[in-house]
Parts: sequence; C-alpha cells; structure tokens
Amino acid sequence: MSVPLKSIERTTDVAAVMSGLGRSARAVARTLALAPPKQKDQALRAMARALRADAETLLKANAEDVAEARAAGMSAAFIDRLLLDPARIETMAQGIEVVAALNDPVGQITESWSRPNGLIIERVRVPLGVVGIIYESRPNVTADAGALCLKSGNAAILRGGSDSLRSSRAIVAALGRGLHEAGLPETAIQLVPTRDRTAVGMMLAGLDGNIDVLVPRGGKDLVARVQAEARVPVFAHLEGVCHVYVDKAATLDMAKAIVLNAKMRRTGVCGAAETLLVDRAGAPRHLQPLVAMLLDAGCEVRGDPETQSVDSRVQPATEDDWKTEYLDAVIAVKVVDGIDAAIAHIERYGSHHTDAIVTEDKANAEKFLREVDSAIVLHNASTQFADGGEFGFGAEIGIATGRLHARGPVGVDQLTTFKYRVHGTGQIRP
Amino acid sequence: MSVPLKSIERTTDVAAVMSGLGRSARAVARTLALAPPKQKDQALRAMARALRADAETLLKANAEDVAEARAAGMSAAFIDRLLLDPARIETMAQGIEVVAALNDPVGQITESWSRPNGLIIERVRVPLGVVGIIYESRPNVTADAGALCLKSGNAAILRGGSDSLRSSRAIVAALGRGLHEAGLPETAIQLVPTRDRTAVGMMLAGLDGNIDVLVPRGGKDLVARVQAEARVPVFAHLEGVCHVYVDKAATLDMAKAIVLNAKMRRTGVCGAAETLLVDRAGAPRHLQPLVAMLLDAGCEVRGDPETQSVDSRVQPATEDDWKTEYLDAVIAVKVVDGIDAAIAHIERYGSHHTDAIVTEDKANAEKFLREVDSAIVLHNASTQFADGGEFGFGAEIGIATGRLHARGPVGVDQLTTFKYRVHGTGQIRP
Repeated sequence: MSVPLKSIERTTDVAAVMSGLGRSARAVARTLALAPPKQKDQALRAMARALRADAETLLKANAEDVAEARAAGMSAAFIDRLLLDPARIETMAQGIEVVAALNDPVGQITESWSRPNGLIIERVRVPLGVVGIIYESRPNVTADAGALCLKSGNAAILRGGSDSLRSSRAIVAALGRGLHEAGLPETAIQLVPTRDRTAVGMMLAGLDGNIDVLVPRGGKDLVARVQAEARVPVFAHLEGVCHVYVDKAATLDMAKAIVLNAKMRRTGVCGAAETLLVDRAGAPRHLQPLVAMLLDAGCEVRGDPETQSVDSRVQPATEDDWKTEYLDAVIAVKVVDGIDAAIAHIERYGSHHTDAIVTEDKANAEKFLREVDSAIVLHNASTQFADGGEFGFGAEIGIATGRLHARGPVGVDQLTTFKYRVHGTGQIRP
Repeated sequence: MSVPLKSIERTTDVAAVMSGLGRSARAVARTLALAPPKQKDQALRAMARALRADAETLLKANAEDVAEARAAGMSAAFIDRLLLDPARIETMAQGIEVVAALNDPVGQITESWSRPNGLIIERVRVPLGVVGIIYESRPNVTADAGALCLKSGNAAILRGGSDSLRSSRAIVAALGRGLHEAGLPETAIQLVPTRDRTAVGMMLAGLDGNIDVLVPRGGKDLVARVQAEARVPVFAHLEGVCHVYVDKAATLDMAKAIVLNAKMRRTGVCGAAETLLVDRAGAPRHLQPLVAMLLDAGCEVRGDPETQSVDSRVQPATEDDWKTEYLDAVIAVKVVDGIDAAIAHIERYGSHHTDAIVTEDKANAEKFLREVDSAIVLHNASTQFADGGEFGFGAEIGIATGRLHARGPVGVDQLTTFKYRVHGTGQIRP
C-alpha cells in the first residue's frame, strides 16, 4: 500500500513551513556548535544503526518512489540513481561511521601566536551555522550530507529531488532517531517536506538569514541555477573541464598511465580529464601512442588537424570541444607549443577545477603548478585524485571551484569557519 | 585655478566605463598573481616615494575638494576626514612602506601532508583576484587599500566618496607612477573616474564577474547597502556592539583598567565597548566603582535599575540601548545573573564582532571564549585590541563579521585564497 504523498503536499503555506525550518535550524545551531565531540559521534553511530534497523521501511518507501518514477517514464540512469537496495543502505550506514571516525574539526586551534604585549592569540575552528543542501534524486546524499554537517557542528536543511521524497523522508526519520538517542535535537537535520518548487527559491534567498551557505549537489542545471540565484554563499563547481598536459619531458609510459586513468577510470566524475594537451616538441614520440591507446580503450577522440593526422579514427574537434565537459568516453586532443601555450589554453578554456602536467622537467612542473589558476593542480598524477577521500579528508560534501572560503574538496574542516580567542593578563591598548 | 571636474563627468556611458575597469582589472590580475615579491615591494616603495614627490599636487587637488565640500555646507567632521596636509601625506607614504615590509602571503604553504600512495599535497596561498573597495571621502583609504591589494597580488578597483574625487585621482596617479617604475601595470590600482552613483550599483553587481570580493569602508549606511545589494562576497562589519563582562571573580583594578580602555581610549572605533555587563554576584564590589569611574571620565552611563541605584548620574537604559553602537562617550550598563546570562545577553543583542570577559576564574574564561560566537573573544584584555595591527597583521583593510572566508581583522593573508598543489611520481587512482 502506497503512502499517499498528497498528504504532505497539502501545505497551503510553503513560505511558513520553510521559514519554520530556517528558524528551527538556527535555534539548534548553537547547541550543535557546543555539542561535545563524543556526543556527536554517538549520534552518528546511532544514525548508522537506525538506518540498518529501518532497512525494510527504507526499501518500501524507495519502492514507491521508484514505481512512481517508472510510471512517469524516467530514464534507466535516473532510476538507478534513485534506487536503494540492501547493499546501498549498508554503504550509507558505513559512510556515516566513517564520518564518526574522523577528527572533530570544531575547537581545533589552527594557528596560535603571541604578541610583544603578552597577548596570546589563537585561531579556532567553529561551525559555519546552518548549511542548506539542494540535491537531486539520490537518496544517499541525505545521509552523507546530514552526517557531514553534524560532524562539523552545523545544522542541515536538506532539499532532495522531488522523486525521492519518500525515500529521503524515511532516511531523515532514521537519522532523527539516532540524534534523539544521543540526546541531540532531531531538528539538527531537517528535510524540506514538500515537493513544491518554490521551496528551493526560498532556500536560495537564505530563509531570512537562517542559511549560512548553500551546497548544490547534482547536474549542471541545478548548480547553475543555485550559483545564479543564491543570495548566500555557495560551495560548488559548475563543471570540471580538466586537462592533462603531456610535456616534451614526459616519459611515455607514465603519460599513458596517467592519461588513461584520468580519462577512463570513471568518465562521469568531475575530476575526469576532458582535454589532452600534447607538447609539440614531444608530439613525435607521444601523440600517436596516446591517441591510439585512448581509441583502443573505447574513447572517442576529437582532435586538432595534427592529432587527426596520426590516426584515421580521430574526429575533427571544433572550438566547442575545448570547453566541453563530456562526462563520457570522449576526449579533445590538441598539440600546443610548449608549456606556455598549454597554460594559456587551460586558462582560456578550463573551469579552474583540476589540471595535471606530466613531465620529468622540474622547472616546467613548478611553472605549471604555480601558473595554472585551478583549485587543484597536479604533477605526475591523475586528475581523478580530485576527491576529498583521496585528499585524506575522509569524506566530502562536494568540490568547490569558487575562490572564497572553500576551494577543492569540501570536507568537514571546510564546513567550519573560525574565530579568534585572545588570552590576556589585563592588557589595555595604548 | 580649479580643475574643471565636469571634464570627467562627461562620460555618457558609465556602464561602458565600469565594464572597462572590470575587464582591465581581470586582465592584470594574472600578472599581479605571478609578480615576484620583490617587484611588488619595489612598486610599493616607489608608490610611497611618488606620494611624497607629488605632495604639492595632492594638496592642491585636495584644497579644491575641500573648498567644494565647504561650499556645499558639509560638517566640520566631514571636512576633517577629507582634509590632507603634509603630515597626513607622510602618514600615507609610511603606511605603504609598512605594507611593503610585510611578509608576502602569495605562495605561502599553509599546510602540507603526504598520502599513503606517496602523493604530497600542499595548500598554497594565492590571490583572490580583483578586490572592489567602496569607501567614503577619506582620501587615505585610496593609498591604504591599493597597497594592501597589491601586496596580496590582487587588482584593486577603488570607488571613493564623490567629494574626494580630485584627491583620490591625484593619489592614484602617484600610485600608478610607482607601479610603472617597478614594471607593473598601472591598471593594478584603478579608480572609478566618475561621481555617477550608478557606478556603485555596477560594482555591487560584480562587474560581469570581474570583481571577486567587495570591501566597503565607511559608515553604517554604506555598509548596510553593500551587504544588502552585493551579488559578490563582502568583507565587512555592519557594527561593533562590543561587550565587556565583568565576572564576579574579576579583580576590580583590572576590570577598571580594561573597561575604561575598552570604552574611552577611542570611542569612535568599531572595537570600542558599548555595553558593560556586571555579574550580580560581584556587583556589590564592582558596580559602583566602575560606574563612577566611567562617569568621572566623562562617559554618559545608561543603566538598568540596579545600575541607576548606585549613582544618581546614571540615566535609565531602554531596550534600544542594549543594541546600540554609540561610537561615542556613552555606555549601557546592566547587571546580569552570572556568566550564562552574560553570554545570553551578548548572543541576543551583540553584533558578533568583539567581546571580552574580565575574570580570574579560568573555567569561566574558557566558557566565555568557547560560547560567545563573535569574530574576536578576549579574556582579560581590552576590546580595543580588535585591530589588524594589534593582531600582528601589519595592516588591515577592515574587520569582518561575516562567517565566510575572512572573519575579524582582514589583513594581506585574508586577502588571499588558496589552491592545492599535488606532487606525484606517476600515481593513478585505483
């Protein structure tokens, strides 16, 4: 028997509901900010247990979401993202336990110094306050984002995709039981309880100052809308047009390994390479083997005339290809006149996300790392390392390409701000 | 002979001029980001020299601004802020030399760690990009802000008060000569060349993505407008409703010294105390002497009934007094029931700027520093230490109470962001 979703759609006043969520979040933010690490970790472990215990309820709610999405003719890929199964529920629970085991960022002293007058100044991490997360119909984001916000002492307001509302509601109910069990307020993690789209607009406006930062998780359209309309800071990346530049001083074996991994390990992640730049001076040795390797691996190659000349399977690249994030087994390849031209290409067409150089030339490596203005720049490593887990952050809520506050993988440390604590012995200012 | 200001007002298309400023700033941002520290410091010292060499020109331009402001009936305080004299020009020049002597933040490695797979990850400071500064008719801000932006590798777009346009123009011309002498582009520091107020609106909109952060410097109206309308991040504080809480375990001598300094050293700075909270348990010893001291020092005291009872000169405080930033020799005084009530008062009425506790009780000090959610919290020290110079930052462009990126004094380090540099030896992601 299907839960009649209409019952939670009856809300005649979405504005009142949303503004209530904002006030509730702000009201508990202080409790969360001051909660002892142990209590937060107890809550996280209890949340994981509650998810496992509720597996049946979760699967039932999810089955209803899936049935509705199927009936609405959603794509197989969409259904796959929406689908929960016992293994995925276990993965969610384990993900929360990973977050519980991370170092607590709140209260960490990141800098400390003393002044000639004897004042001791400390810079200490404190939570941001209230984090709003807007995502699509991937129920697991509900658990991931809620756990990361709690660990970093923030209240969370979650707005998941409409098609996953029943699933998300069941997950948030389980998380709430975990919070309650540890003596923390259930309103620490709140779900927007309506499919009404005006709710998103209210979150973008910041819920009367009750959202401190927004994190959109999902496709380009969602992120673009949030970036364009949000009146509060946003941690996000619109796209990852990532480059691998193979310098003339690269070894072919390393270049092949890195290019293949950067492009083909997983083509749908934001750190996947989309453009290969080959130094003209090394092209006679590097270009044909790299292109053939990619083609043989099932990757479509769109190249400039020089690249087309080394393999008949290469398609011609257009101007658009240099700025396209394929997120697929397609790569654009261009021969460039050395490192300066490579950097100029990346600055012109890239998205300031993640870019790599392959070279044995130390000076060129340093130049690339210094001059490419991206959140992550790598020397002799795959762009697919653009990931909070790979950085050692344990988990991430996303990757940011904005310049302010958070940049690169956004883990629990990046979900905090700081304050200055000054210890005196009666100092007054002259 | 007066320079006909109309000549720079003829601009029929302010939008075109402003968008040109934005493009020019973005175009040089990369050069500035990559400029060697030595070259920037040469430019700064040359800028200081140029200001001194141009003293006569500056004074003449300023005299015209002042004459016009006088004719327009501006207040004496306004004229004083606008006025340049040889000593103030020398102070500006020395201020730039202080900035030249600071450590260069760009390229500093603030964190570095290695991963089990051998990757070495560094977090490195890089400039923000383009900083827009909107300020009132204080010509010296032109030099201060320009110098801080250059030191931190950022391009600056300056919009000073209309009444100081001639003065600011003369200052920017001198700064430009200094930049040129060191081989840096003069467009590193640009002045909005028009009094047209629509220019400010365009800056608030971010000049087509060509301003990365805005810093308003001036009165509450200006800051409030920038905070309300800006579509880009803002580093600012709207007001400093700063508190001193005198705990029962405070020594009277220290409490007197800190309260007097926090309130009366300079009443017009944002770190000046506006409210004194006295622990009821210590009030019999502390309240009367503190209140008498303030009154004797020429400070008006507005108190709750208990405070009124200790001295007939105390005026009654209204609800509004608890949230007022007087910026004057006036203080609100309240007796509170211990540290929890003090913290609750500060969280309710304060502006999250700077707050201090005076106590010999270590546990209470720690509690206050932990629980008061302000950019700066102090134990046994005056709130007037809320200042970049006093923090050891050398100079500041302002104080921020926002939670994102910069908080507290904003010095050259806070005018940078970061990127991750990853050093590999051929690592690919499994």
